[in-house]
Parts: sequence; structure tokens; C-alpha cells
Amino acid sequence: MNETAFELHPQLAADTHFVGTLGLSRVLLMDDARFAWLILVPMRAGMRDWIDLPHAQQHQLLDEVELCSHALRALVRPDKLNIASLGNMVAQLHVHVIARHVDDAAWPGPVWGVGARVPYGAGALTRRKAELLALLHAASQG
Amino acid sequence: MNETAFELHPQLAADTHFVGTLGLSRVLLMDDARFAWLILVPMRAGMRDWIDLPHAQQHQLLDEVELCSHALRALVRPDKLNIASLGNMVAQLHVHVIARHVDDAAWPGPVWGVGARVPYGAGALTRRKAELLALLHAASQG
Repeated sequence: MNETAFELHPQLAADTHFVGTLGLSRVLLMDDARFAWLILVPMRAGMRDWIDLPHAQQHQLLDEVELCSHALRALVRPDKLNIASLGNMVAQLHVHVIARHVDDAAWPGPVWGVGARVPYGAGALTRRKAELLALLHAASQG
Repeated sequence: MNETAFELHPQLAADTHFVGTLGLSRVLLMDDARFAWLILVPMRAGMRDWIDLPHAQQHQLLDEVELCSHALRALVRPDKLNIASLGNMVAQLHVHVIARHVDDAAWPGPVWGVGARVPYGAGALTRRKAELLALLHAASQG
């Protein structure tokens, strides 16, 4: 149950690109260019549900969700944010932070399992990761 | 933007039964006996996204999600908890807290839009609300 024992679940690793690290969580970008979609994974082994974290870290995770939310708002001006910790497929604790638009590929339904992922091209991925890192840095200063 | 101006969205009112009130939120029971499914609605007008709340109330909402999570764990021993603030259909800020089981009607997918709701019978509803109130009370003392 300590930080050194944390290993990212291979399915999350396969579906995402690494963006950066916050105090508690890894920030991952879902490899689906249809949505601006981040996933936060607390770097603690053995966690499944949000309430499995110690109380202070539950709050810290929410603060990191807030940072990501502000970054996505600044990046793509979403009509709605979707925040979700589901984990039925991948039980390792992770939180989705997804920018939704009324004309996106899944609106108004949830994004999970809708259509086929559209992987980022190399240039678009490099740009998006750089934008996100800059916005997360700015939000964490703000 | 003050508490007196808060009104529950009519769609949420139509889909749920009132269970009780916590410090920030109304606790509602989704009228679908297939799942043990609570919805928290912060009693603040004009809120859409979790990050629209003042920072301290963001934490308070998470604390109330935690209470509901513990109540659902005690009630039905779920395999997984699903926590989600989506709001694509009903923009008023609300958080789903759903007890999931590997043999439930939607597993392993999300619950939204799956099949037809199974409304509670009168006796089952009365029992479930009483159980939830007792568990929420116990969790809030813990």
C-alpha cells in the first residue's frame, strides 16, 4: 500500500498518453481525439474506490480533478464537464475528467463505449500535451 | 445564487424519491430497484459543474459522497462504487453514487440509459429509505 508499489494498470497505460504528475496523481490523456479527456490515477497501490483513499487524499484527488477541470475549460471551452470514477472494467482507482460539447460524438450520453476511438496523430498529440502541461501549470499557480 | 433560490430540477424530482438532507445536499434515491443508486444535489442555485461550487463546498460535496458511499457499502456490499457528475441531460449539479455488482443489469457498463427502470414497490421503497436514513445517520456519526 505504499507509493513505490504503485503500478499503472496495463489497460490504462494502453489507452492513454502520459501528460504529467501532480502531487497525488498521474495525469493521462485518453488517446481519443474526439474528446478532450483526462484520466487521473492516484499513485497509491491497491486503491479501487475514491473512499479507499485516506480522507485527506480524497480531498487532494478532488483538488487535482479541479485543476484538470480548469485546464480543460481553458483549452476547449466545454459546455459541460463530466467527472466520473467508475472502474467497472479497470478496478484501479482512476477519475475521468472529460470536456463535453453539445455537438460531440456522444452527446448527450456518456462517452464510454460510444463508437470507435480516434487516436491522436503525432503532431496533434505533441501539441495537446504541451497545451495541457502549460494549463495545468498555470492552474496550479492560480 | 443563494440557498433560498434553490429549486430541484423537475427531471430529478420525477426520477427519484427524497431520502433526506445533508449539510450541503439533498439525498435522492433513484427510482430504479435494479440498483442501489443515490443522487446528491447541492442546495445551491445556478451550479452546473463541481468546480462551480466555492472550494470549501467542493470538499463538502465530496464528504457527502463519502457518507453515501459508506451507506451503500453497508447496505448492499457492492463490488464497485460508481461516482459521477455528468449532467449532460440535466445541467443542475448533481452527483450519482451507485452501488454496482458484477451480476447487475448493466455490468460492466455504466448504468445510464440501460434497459428500463424498475420502480420500487411501496413497501420496498419505505424499507429502503428507512435503511438509508439509518445508515447515513450512522456514517455521519462515525
